[in-house]
Amino acid sequence: MAGRTTFRLDESDLPTRWYNIVPDLPKPPPPPLHPGTREPITPDDLAPLFPRALIEQEATQDRYVPIPDEVAEVYRLWRPSPLIRARRLERELGTPARIYYKYEGVSPVGSHKTNTAVPQAYYNAAEGVGLLTTETGAGQWGSALAFASAQFGLDCEVWQVRASYDQKPYRKIMMETFGATVHASPSELTESGRAVLARTPDSTGSLGIAISEAVEMAAGNPNARYALGSVLNHVLMHQTVIGEEALAQMAMAGDTPDLIVGCTGGGSNFGGLVFPFLREKLAGGPQPEIRAVEPAACPSLTRGVYTYDFGDTAGLTPLLKMHTLGHAFIPDPIHAGGLRYHGMSPLLSHIVDLGLVEAVSVPQNECFAAGIRFARAEGVIPAPEPSHALAECVREALRCRDSGEEKVILTALCGHALLDLPAYATYLSGDMTDRLLSDDEIRLAMASVPEAAG
Amino acid sequence: MAGRTTFRLDESDLPTRWYNIVPDLPKPPPPPLHPGTREPITPDDLAPLFPRALIEQEATQDRYVPIPDEVAEVYRLWRPSPLIRARRLERELGTPARIYYKYEGVSPVGSHKTNTAVPQAYYNAAEGVGLLTTETGAGQWGSALAFASAQFGLDCEVWQVRASYDQKPYRKIMMETFGATVHASPSELTESGRAVLARTPDSTGSLGIAISEAVEMAAGNPNARYALGSVLNHVLMHQTVIGEEALAQMAMAGDTPDLIVGCTGGGSNFGGLVFPFLREKLAGGPQPEIRAVEPAACPSLTRGVYTYDFGDTAGLTPLLKMHTLGHAFIPDPIHAGGLRYHGMSPLLSHIVDLGLVEAVSVPQNECFAAGIRFARAEGVIPAPEPSHALAECVREALRCRDSGEEKVILTALCGHALLDLPAYATYLSGDMTDRLLSDDEIRLAMASVPEAAG
Repeated sequence: MAGRTTFRLDESDLPTRWYNIVPDLPKPPPPPLHPGTREPITPDDLAPLFPRALIEQEATQDRYVPIPDEVAEVYRLWRPSPLIRARRLERELGTPARIYYKYEGVSPVGSHKTNTAVPQAYYNAAEGVGLLTTETGAGQWGSALAFASAQFGLDCEVWQVRASYDQKPYRKIMMETFGATVHASPSELTESGRAVLARTPDSTGSLGIAISEAVEMAAGNPNARYALGSVLNHVLMHQTVIGEEALAQMAMAGDTPDLIVGCTGGGSNFGGLVFPFLREKLAGGPQPEIRAVEPAACPSLTRGVYTYDFGDTAGLTPLLKMHTLGHAFIPDPIHAGGLRYHGMSPLLSHIVDLGLVEAVSVPQNECFAAGIRFARAEGVIPAPEPSHALAECVREALRCRDSGEEKVILTALCGHALLDLPAYATYLSGDMTDRLLSDDEIRLAMASVPEAAG
Repeated sequence: MAGRTTFRLDESDLPTRWYNIVPDLPKPPPPPLHPGTREPITPDDLAPLFPRALIEQEATQDRYVPIPDEVAEVYRLWRPSPLIRARRLERELGTPARIYYKYEGVSPVGSHKTNTAVPQAYYNAAEGVGLLTTETGAGQWGSALAFASAQFGLDCEVWQVRASYDQKPYRKIMMETFGATVHASPSELTESGRAVLARTPDSTGSLGIAISEAVEMAAGNPNARYALGSVLNHVLMHQTVIGEEALAQMAMAGDTPDLIVGCTGGGSNFGGLVFPFLREKLAGGPQPEIRAVEPAACPSLTRGVYTYDFGDTAGLTPLLKMHTLGHAFIPDPIHAGGLRYHGMSPLLSHIVDLGLVEAVSVPQNECFAAGIRFARAEGVIPAPEPSHALAECVREALRCRDSGEEKVILTALCGHALLDLPAYATYLSGDMTDRLLSDDEIRLAMASVPEAAG
């Protein structure tokens, strides 16, 4: 019998607390600024958008925040998630590297997004909120929040980017199955949406526009709050259950990662896996290389600028110091919808700026080739987003094949592609395109960045 | 903290053998007959279609057949599968019943079908077969065989019922992602297909026609064999890993089922869960009620006749003694494609005839209502097929609510609905229909049954 393939924790080993990396960093991350005053925002500034508990978590200096029982009870529907050694992929690649993936596709909606959707819905419900609004692209986040809202009796309204709303109806059906209401964005329901439609009646939308719409609706309704699926500190913190479990599971496997690889869109999947390992590294424990992988078509970490910018298109959010391509940047319609964001988590941006994480970019054809290779070997068809991380794993495993190095690689397989299969059909038919982004395009988009403050 | 939700076995607890219920039955099941001679078929009759190892398993009197290491290694990509107590559904229903579901949707293709696809591909590859042919309806089985074929380097050609091929493209893409070739059935590639197209050029196909095409292609190619996803003894035997695991997991939970409920199309999901429990029952162990649930639109067990009939439309298969609606019966296009089969596993039919299993039927609207209730409580959106079993669980749980009985219910959640979401959209929009099948329709279809033999 071959060696062990899957490393599972018991339900009783579910982490009992989230990890906040902020107090462990050598330098604190720059604060978000009020777009009017350019002063650091206060909890009161955020009160129309988020419940008190999440505002506190956003700014907390505590290293750990306890996971409420009510959240843990829902987590246990699918957590702890498995850590799997990709033995069949290793064999297929002929590599001496040992490749492990932490698989979050076992969640009800097929991705890691439920790890933060559940606590966000819980805290809102606990503070008497009746309705959550949010945006979604391809729909991973919207369906996670729809599921979580159903668990705590909240209404949920989702603004879905028009292009995805039309082309990927399965996610919309999933959200409706969980009881949510879905609007195509830009919509006629908000000022932000109407403004876009007035300029471009056939707009296919963007995440930035959809965020503006969802924020506007929440801000104008005292019974409603807004929920964000990535970027913010509390979101990344909720995702650290991934890394805490993976730490314990790598110990079960008797291996220590030499390299940790994750894809980055807003940064929550990456931060979720990496931060607990980074805690150990900063404390003098094992010293893995840590690598973020982003799409060549939306290269905020590798080609963007680290500066203050808005999180949305209309400029309704606070100013966030982050790696950005400019909030007016509209990436090509690549299939990894979850990575098509002009900015990056401010916390992760800061950590990259501190030199604790390196970044690379990969074109999407290479990602889908890696995704197919992975699927045929391991069974799971990876979502377009984590296929970026897998492409980097394949690159590294082939380097090890040539060098003979027995490197231990750990990656986050943050979701499956069952609702993204048309993207694979496009790849298999040979119709998938990759375009080299010119410096001029990026320079033009960067013109939308407001003058830096602080 | 609430009680335990998920009961997991370790990878090392994976069953090492499949269970064959045949020698434990009070009476042996009637043999398949050669359609020409009406004599029991011989291994030689089956040799053009199946590898020797599977032909032996089809007729074996051994109670147990060892699971080869190569098969176990692939099983370990997702097995042992979890047993989950549906605590949130129980609460939502206000029932004192305790409901457990054995969840097979964690497999690479999202259903139990891989449990038999993997050994079938393995034995074929081991005997030097180069190509597997099969049929599929909605695509669960075809995608399972495509996945399994990729594991053992086999080519795989799938005839998919035209209606599904056109309406449910995601499954086709999944099969192609795993490297299989997919044909719409009826096709111009086979005599059986051409004959149907000559009569009805715009035929949307049926499982019976697709079986005829796949069988014909395998029979005419010495390098090819045919694979069937349900109905046959060896298929049901491979699925008993479900029930063996569930027995151990119910013991972990400290509960004993009073009622076991599963959906039945060809019978493999049901047999897989139930047979190990039935072994214990026949040996004087716990005595659960065991209930098969079928769609009201395709009621082979509740309104069909127990007699010899063909397994396919063209009459190419052996004659099987089974509950059948007549091999010419074309069920209404309900969404549970996996349950739209005119016949039933001969082994399970025999067990029903012996009075060891009871059967009920449920209309599809009730199934989708139960599916949505389940999804909002438990997160998993159930495939249309197991939503039939869930509808019966809900009926029973509500009876318990009224009576106060703390009945322990175990059901097989054999797959998720992520690739069947348009069916949920139809339900949510109020457009789902249910038609009462008339006795005349059934009588007419039954006229296709050949005169009984033996």
